[in-house]
Amino acid sequence: MDARLPSRTALGRALLERAAALARHSDSAEHYTRTYLTPAHRAAAAEIASWMERAGMAVRVDAIGSVIGRYEARSADAKTLLMGSHFDSVRNGGKYDGVLGILVPIACVAELHARGERLAHAIEVAAFADEEGARFQTSFLASRAMLGRFDPALLDRRDAEGVSLRDAMTAAGLDPARIPEAAIDTARIGAYVEVHIEQGPVLLQEGSALGVVTGIAGGTRHTLTLRGEAGHAGTVPMSLRHDALAAAAEMVLAIEKRCSAGGSLVGTVGLLQVKDGTGNVIPGHVQFTADIRAPDDATREAAEEDAFAACEAIAQRRGVALERVRTHSVRAAPCADWLQHALARAIEAVDAPRPAAGARRLPSGAGHDAMIFAEAVDAGMLFVRCGAGGVSHNPAETVDAEDAGAAAQALLAFLRALRWPR
Amino acid sequence: MDARLPSRTALGRALLERAAALARHSDSAEHYTRTYLTPAHRAAAAEIASWMERAGMAVRVDAIGSVIGRYEARSADAKTLLMGSHFDSVRNGGKYDGVLGILVPIACVAELHARGERLAHAIEVAAFADEEGARFQTSFLASRAMLGRFDPALLDRRDAEGVSLRDAMTAAGLDPARIPEAAIDTARIGAYVEVHIEQGPVLLQEGSALGVVTGIAGGTRHTLTLRGEAGHAGTVPMSLRHDALAAAAEMVLAIEKRCSAGGSLVGTVGLLQVKDGTGNVIPGHVQFTADIRAPDDATREAAEEDAFAACEAIAQRRGVALERVRTHSVRAAPCADWLQHALARAIEAVDAPRPAAGARRLPSGAGHDAMIFAEAVDAGMLFVRCGAGGVSHNPAETVDAEDAGAAAQALLAFLRALRWPR
Repeated sequence: MDARLPSRTALGRALLERAAALARHSDSAEHYTRTYLTPAHRAAAAEIASWMERAGMAVRVDAIGSVIGRYEARSADAKTLLMGSHFDSVRNGGKYDGVLGILVPIACVAELHARGERLAHAIEVAAFADEEGARFQTSFLASRAMLGRFDPALLDRRDAEGVSLRDAMTAAGLDPARIPEAAIDTARIGAYVEVHIEQGPVLLQEGSALGVVTGIAGGTRHTLTLRGEAGHAGTVPMSLRHDALAAAAEMVLAIEKRCSAGGSLVGTVGLLQVKDGTGNVIPGHVQFTADIRAPDDATREAAEEDAFAACEAIAQRRGVALERVRTHSVRAAPCADWLQHALARAIEAVDAPRPAAGARRLPSGAGHDAMIFAEAVDAGMLFVRCGAGGVSHNPAETVDAEDAGAAAQALLAFLRALRWPR
Repeated sequence: MDARLPSRTALGRALLERAAALARHSDSAEHYTRTYLTPAHRAAAAEIASWMERAGMAVRVDAIGSVIGRYEARSADAKTLLMGSHFDSVRNGGKYDGVLGILVPIACVAELHARGERLAHAIEVAAFADEEGARFQTSFLASRAMLGRFDPALLDRRDAEGVSLRDAMTAAGLDPARIPEAAIDTARIGAYVEVHIEQGPVLLQEGSALGVVTGIAGGTRHTLTLRGEAGHAGTVPMSLRHDALAAAAEMVLAIEKRCSAGGSLVGTVGLLQVKDGTGNVIPGHVQFTADIRAPDDATREAAEEDAFAACEAIAQRRGVALERVRTHSVRAAPCADWLQHALARAIEAVDAPRPAAGARRLPSGAGHDAMIFAEAVDAGMLFVRCGAGGVSHNPAETVDAEDAGAAAQALLAFLRALRWPR
């Protein structure tokens, strides 16, 4: 262990305190929910900006509302290492998801700044304004905007209250016409590195505090709309019904079954709505989402094909019309070998709990901003062990202070040792 | 056919015009929805009151918001025949459900009034303010209040916007403390008769315009709440999930299967909600309703027992907590023999399409205010053929003008021939 580093425990506790402080900026008084451009979201952005400034960074807010801090290199022409993650959350989520990947890099820069230490590369820390997309059913909105890949059609999308993305931006003081200005010049970015809680049980089960991500699972999301025949719950004989909810129930189970075929393939129906539903009316109109992911695109595509063919057959048999729209799609993204190697070395340089064989390498089942950057620059990810059985997207999500501290130590070791590949 | 009656076609067209006029009082600009105590609901009440007055009735609004018109008998001490139905609707419903049972009796009284004709019995026509209960998930609210059986605990119930029933009443100018005053003296009521569209396909399939109801199916409604474990849609292996929606889907199918055992047994899951649901989160909390009905209480109770035992087993197997609350229960209600006989005679007295064997008798799968009155007085029902395949609780619901006219003629014949049984 590097004797110049602050104590792991002190580092970790400070990180967890900041995560707790940030979680107070919530859309709901009852649970932690922070969605794009709400008052709580903008308050969180302001608090992150103040922490970046205190760590010696020059701070800007880009056209989509992300907060970016920059710490210069020893020389002005050096390339930049970009690090970051998101500060929006799912509804009723966990307070480390995304946030840890903002706080850990800020802590590392704060440490460099405190020592007056400049590195051979510049550092930028990006706090992405929208990754989960819970409010407008978007995904990777902020990282896509930073790569100049914002889809202007999204501006018309509306939240549950009917507010359009365009109006939400204007109300928050952002100018939708200037979104293209959020695009950065990727030629000056040497690599993108993201720290994130694992959001799964692998590191916990194996007794490792940290892990190196080998690649990020690809995934698609579809919206399925069923139109059957509404009718009176007391008078239409069971054999004459075209119940859209019963059909949807069969489809939910068909998707679950096909995606339980093994490996890292997963399938989830997260949202299901009975439109104009009442207890005494046979459902005539149902909508649900299907999220299917796998680390291997061919495996995922085969599962999608089978699952949706099963849904079509169910709709046919029940006399229900089925419409399916793909709302999200991202291919599997491998992490750069040289970054995997450098991150493994950094983990091994700090004595965090890990298997004797060296740093644990594992795939990410969750999508991350890193998979968007992987399309443009070399990308790597450092996973931090998730407590409480590995649950995430859930208020029970936890991170151990020692593990958070180890992540900061390992990232600092990585930053100091970083050399661009030839 | 009684030559003094106006033409069936003219009668029927006038009834359908009034139904169309009333449907303009809707909570929604897009479809016909009229729920308890909304502005549209009160406007409909006012229009019904004006029609009653024009038909020569003395009109009052009771403490729950129902509109009641009275047409006196030849003598002051005569008993009263109470007729009526409801003017609230389900969401996106049909414009004859309930309303026809208000308009047909008003048309009959208008005819008597036009001729200066008084009968041996007084007539009251009740337009019940709430039967479907779509806004507060109540049922038979108004007819129960009229029988002095209002449950004061309902005053705390809230609609989807969080408005309590108590506050909604106060805002509409009704005094919740005076609800007991809605109770009538059933000793002065000789019988209750309700005209209603069949809301099913039986009369349509058999070529009968009108039918006599033998009894009304009993039914219960339950709310089932499932708590599984929310989690990240990309990282929790399928085998480790406790997905509340997948469990609910299995239950929906188990209820459907058990209630498809035959006979007039029916089971419906009309409402299902994923609480805090998002596309990329495994559902941790799901709530749904189960509505089970049969003309025979023992058949229904056996089906409930089996279906909910299946739900319990599914919850156990999937590691999901299940809570079940009964929100509504009403026993099967037979119609009085003498009223069935008198209504059949009246149907046979008008030359509406019907089988050679006489008026069709059939059970009602739907619940009606008549089943509440059947607990206190003799009750009967006259069904009118439902078009469009028999659909109801659906904007496609239709009634033929000829059939509506035949219903008015038959009811008038019934009213004129009515003698109380000894």
